[in-house]
Amino acid sequence: MIIFGIDPGSERTGYGCVDTDGRRHHLRTCGTISAPAHTAFPERLHVIHSTLVSLLAEHQPDCVAIENIFHARNVRSALKLGHARGVALLAASAAGIAIAEYSPAEIKRAVVGFGRAEKAQVAQMVKLLLGLDAPPSPHDAADAVAVAICHIHSSHGAVALAARLQGPPAGARSWRQYRP
Amino acid sequence: MIIFGIDPGSERTGYGCVDTDGRRHHLRTCGTISAPAHTAFPERLHVIHSTLVSLLAEHQPDCVAIENIFHARNVRSALKLGHARGVALLAASAAGIAIAEYSPAEIKRAVVGFGRAEKAQVAQMVKLLLGLDAPPSPHDAADAVAVAICHIHSSHGAVALAARLQGPPAGARSWRQYRP
Repeated sequence: MIIFGIDPGSERTGYGCVDTDGRRHHLRTCGTISAPAHTAFPERLHVIHSTLVSLLAEHQPDCVAIENIFHARNVRSALKLGHARGVALLAASAAGIAIAEYSPAEIKRAVVGFGRAEKAQVAQMVKLLLGLDAPPSPHDAADAVAVAICHIHSSHGAVALAARLQGPPAGARSWRQYRP
Repeated sequence: MIIFGIDPGSERTGYGCVDTDGRRHHLRTCGTISAPAHTAFPERLHVIHSTLVSLLAEHQPDCVAIENIFHARNVRSALKLGHARGVALLAASAAGIAIAEYSPAEIKRAVVGFGRAEKAQVAQMVKLLLGLDAPPSPHDAADAVAVAICHIHSSHGAVALAARLQGPPAGARSWRQYRP
């Protein structure tokens, strides 16, 4: 199963692609997308979208996992973040890829075991879980990988993997359902 | 000159396309884009984006005029609105079309002459300025047409039209500049 995690941001969007056989996870790629400084905002959105479209076409993930956002410093930063997250969701939905959303606390709990973990702790656990030499850098890339791992560890991801390996368990709710 | 106005919204996105020879304006089309009820949010964004992409390809506007948003009821509604506005900006920027942004007060001032005009007054002025039998309905469509008219009435639009008709006036700042 291949999971593509996204940590959207208007300045820098993190991404991380992980595949798993259920026991061992392997990092395919991770990084950040950012446009050159002084790039106009609509062009910046275009860079985020077109890069994600190519990455999704390259890695053909079974699911895109993305952080769900409920809070922002203020309305202005919520608007900016919404723009970036909108084009990220669009890249996945236009490609017909299932989307799963997780709150920051769910992600930290799934990866570190503690919903209020620090960014550095998340990065360290990502390193351990994937057997990397160093945590993915910068934080936006590590956060995106963490969302992908969260999906694998979550019941939704587990049901999907079981469906892949043995056919769907009787009465299992399909994880492909988009969770609003 | 052909101007395509957009009034973005996650539930309903208004659009209106106006052409002008500088004196007389003509409404080419207007309407709203909305997905069926219960459509998942990413699919909703896909509908907004793909419909705008087809409309822009059909009408080949010189400029997309879009409302600039600084305020929202709360962070949650700002996030939702940001998603819709993000995919609208993306449709224009990916097509290489110039984008002009106007605040709600600028639009009302340009169309009605008064920055705090009511929605119904805006719709009535749109009807008068375009010689329509009735104001465009619903309000989201009228608002989108109003943004297009605002661009025509604004100095940016005027400079562009002059450039079209007589070549650019000496020392004129290009209106094609995106205004962040």
